[in-house]
Amino acid sequence: MAKNEKMVEQITSMDVDFAQWYTDVVKKAELVDYSGVKGCMIIRPYGYAIWENIQKDLDARFKALGHENVYMPLFIPESLLQREKDHVEGFAPECAWVTIGGGNQLTERLAVRPTSETLFCEHFRNVIQSYRDLPKLYNQWCNVVRWEKTTRPFLRTSEFLWQEGHTMHETEEEAREETRRMLGVYRDFYAETLAIPAVTGRKTEKEKFAGAEETYTIEPMMHNGVALQGGTSHYFGDGFAKAFDITFAGRDNTRCYPHQTSWGVSTRMIGAIIMSHGDDNGLILPPRIAPIQVVIIPVAQHKEGVLEKANAVKEELLAAGLRVKLDDSDYSTGWKYSQYEMKGVPLRLELGPRDIESNSCVLVSRVSREKKFVPLEGLADAVKEALRSVHDELYNRVLENTKARTYEARNFDEFLDIAANKSGYIKAMWCGDTACEDKIKDETGGVKSRCIPFTEEHLADTCVCCGKPAKHMVIWGRQY
Amino acid sequence: MAKNEKMVEQITSMDVDFAQWYTDVVKKAELVDYSGVKGCMIIRPYGYAIWENIQKDLDARFKALGHENVYMPLFIPESLLQREKDHVEGFAPECAWVTIGGGNQLTERLAVRPTSETLFCEHFRNVIQSYRDLPKLYNQWCNVVRWEKTTRPFLRTSEFLWQEGHTMHETEEEAREETRRMLGVYRDFYAETLAIPAVTGRKTEKEKFAGAEETYTIEPMMHNGVALQGGTSHYFGDGFAKAFDITFAGRDNTRCYPHQTSWGVSTRMIGAIIMSHGDDNGLILPPRIAPIQVVIIPVAQHKEGVLEKANAVKEELLAAGLRVKLDDSDYSTGWKYSQYEMKGVPLRLELGPRDIESNSCVLVSRVSREKKFVPLEGLADAVKEALRSVHDELYNRVLENTKARTYEARNFDEFLDIAANKSGYIKAMWCGDTACEDKIKDETGGVKSRCIPFTEEHLADTCVCCGKPAKHMVIWGRQY
Repeated sequence: MAKNEKMVEQITSMDVDFAQWYTDVVKKAELVDYSGVKGCMIIRPYGYAIWENIQKDLDARFKALGHENVYMPLFIPESLLQREKDHVEGFAPECAWVTIGGGNQLTERLAVRPTSETLFCEHFRNVIQSYRDLPKLYNQWCNVVRWEKTTRPFLRTSEFLWQEGHTMHETEEEAREETRRMLGVYRDFYAETLAIPAVTGRKTEKEKFAGAEETYTIEPMMHNGVALQGGTSHYFGDGFAKAFDITFAGRDNTRCYPHQTSWGVSTRMIGAIIMSHGDDNGLILPPRIAPIQVVIIPVAQHKEGVLEKANAVKEELLAAGLRVKLDDSDYSTGWKYSQYEMKGVPLRLELGPRDIESNSCVLVSRVSREKKFVPLEGLADAVKEALRSVHDELYNRVLENTKARTYEARNFDEFLDIAANKSGYIKAMWCGDTACEDKIKDETGGVKSRCIPFTEEHLADTCVCCGKPAKHMVIWGRQY
Repeated sequence: MAKNEKMVEQITSMDVDFAQWYTDVVKKAELVDYSGVKGCMIIRPYGYAIWENIQKDLDARFKALGHENVYMPLFIPESLLQREKDHVEGFAPECAWVTIGGGNQLTERLAVRPTSETLFCEHFRNVIQSYRDLPKLYNQWCNVVRWEKTTRPFLRTSEFLWQEGHTMHETEEEAREETRRMLGVYRDFYAETLAIPAVTGRKTEKEKFAGAEETYTIEPMMHNGVALQGGTSHYFGDGFAKAFDITFAGRDNTRCYPHQTSWGVSTRMIGAIIMSHGDDNGLILPPRIAPIQVVIIPVAQHKEGVLEKANAVKEELLAAGLRVKLDDSDYSTGWKYSQYEMKGVPLRLELGPRDIESNSCVLVSRVSREKKFVPLEGLADAVKEALRSVHDELYNRVLENTKARTYEARNFDEFLDIAANKSGYIKAMWCGDTACEDKIKDETGGVKSRCIPFTEEHLADTCVCCGKPAKHMVIWGRQY
């Protein structure tokens, strides 16, 4: 036992070293293992179960809006990737290239897909002939590869899992609507499922996706004030359609180019969950994606009737559709408490002889650590209510942290002062020039525009950097 | 309309050219599209929905037996792949190799995983220390790449989707049991979900998996008498454990090697479905994986009340948990009939003004094409019953075809005669020597041992090929 008891040893405190805290948590909560393959991670059962719950929820949201799943090839021939100029410039430098197959040097090298716009376009060309074939609302769940020098589990890995939606529409208006609609799906998913409220808006010219006309983004703020680009939705116009010669016969029988979107979120979201909700005792999982929502810990389990009752409670909660684990192993109760705290299980249910006598049990919230005595009668409903509370508490905590760490700068000195001394978002006016973004990044050592939010405030008339007339309010911040 | 009406043109007859029939079906039922990437296929929405239904069913079977899903890296460093000698010899020749990443030549080239035994072993080494850590029952759903010269959608593609189970056990006995249990899961899945009865058994030494001690296989016979290796389950002994230095402290505190299995099925199964059940009108899908189980075709849909009633029927069937589509497009009724026959929808529900008047509808089975008048009252139950019948009919048809095309050979002349003039399985005795398998393959132009079935019959005392004493009855046949 001694060896295993050690597993629940102290992790680094968030305030001492946030990066080390993160590394400790992903490892000790058994989310990932490092592999001998540079930059690639092994997602362990507990981590993968989170991803499966994320997939199930998002997939239902996509399908409810009429999207269909497909599967495209892993490889992109170099000539295909080169078809759209901006796109290849953005992605070619971080590609992994297959040059040998079946023992032979290939005549054309193949990129392991970093994203699949080009493959989708090649297919769209085959299946879109008439306005009657539109819209095409496709999505795929797959792995992609983008070569990275420094990597961190979930946040930045050379291979990651994601979904990429690719849609084609008859009109520009419809495509623009889809782009914003899907960002809305992400925003709702973050709020309703991950309990993460987040800033959303439009990327500046400098920060948008390679080949896109417009990129929308969701930018949750992590506990330490650093931003994580949590998902993006792109409007492509008809640029790819022209590059790939995709046309359709319109209602008036003229040849038209369709209008395109793409949108994606990835296993990065698990990084967002960890850094939004976790604390010095480990992970805290939002109940809607937690692989275990309630862990039942029997107290004095050797006493007559305890395990029997614990099993009955488990069956009752399972029957109510909850994800439940009963830990009747011979580890100590204290060890179990720490273990499931580390793993971020939202609720602990303690059940001992005295509880059974009084026909009740104890529910402990992972967030507030508050203990509640709850009657066994009507337990499932009480547990569901407690899970809803955990969700709301998590959501509100992130909201408050984000508010508390969001600052306003009206001139460049203020901006530099905040960037140097605070960690969080800075709201400031901007003239629209990339030069000012570059200058801000250089002088602050890394603060970048996160987005132009959907509702802009008017903080001043002039750009915080150059003093010329301001065009937009931008949210600025450092990023993962 | 004219252009689309053409879509339902005649396909090649199975009896005229089975290979061309297959190609026509995958294309016209909109299962796949060809891509510009050699040997890789695009799985279209209708094809991918079949795969999703397969995944959902199998995944629940795996999880019910305690298996957990994980995700391993896409890449295998060459040195890792070389760790187990037989394994690398089997797979290295068909690997795709990444040699350039992030603009730089790699110091060690990376294989795109053809299968993941080596990666799992590397991870097992980290997470198995004590007998308490066993068994480890892991599975992953992913893409793999095996370079192929000639490819056919689903049957043989350079990239395919699959699941690979990898388990580690304390004892040889447990691991052997798992190997056979998982083959049993495949056999049940084929029978209960895909409506495909199949031969199961053990592979000969020559045909087993690279690195395995024993390989079990499921070998459904396609409509034309050719075998398809439909899934395999391998017992590895402790060969990989030794090569990767995976040990655990046993119950008596000695260092022990764990015993290993792996097992997998792939998108190939969709090929098996097509070639087991299809006919000259196209695809026939077993109801349990059909994306659309019932298609409702309104007759004289412009007449008052028809579409309204059709929608009400649709809602009722959806509420009963059925997968339903109502086609109220303006294509002709005849066009719709052919279209959904091509797509293999198990049941067609026709509903017109006269049916509504008599409070009934017409159900047409895709297999028997039998029409039944069914009262609208209690319709959902009648539809479920009809779907069960379709399943049983499909199952029995395959069973009869397999029986009718299974022959027995007692001497080599008989064997060669059957191989030359019939298409199907040949039961014949075998001495156990690979030399006889080689000779049979050469002299018949491709007949190979499928498996040694779990229950062997005694057909003769001597090997059908060399006349030496027989050790086993083997099922022989040509394969995809």
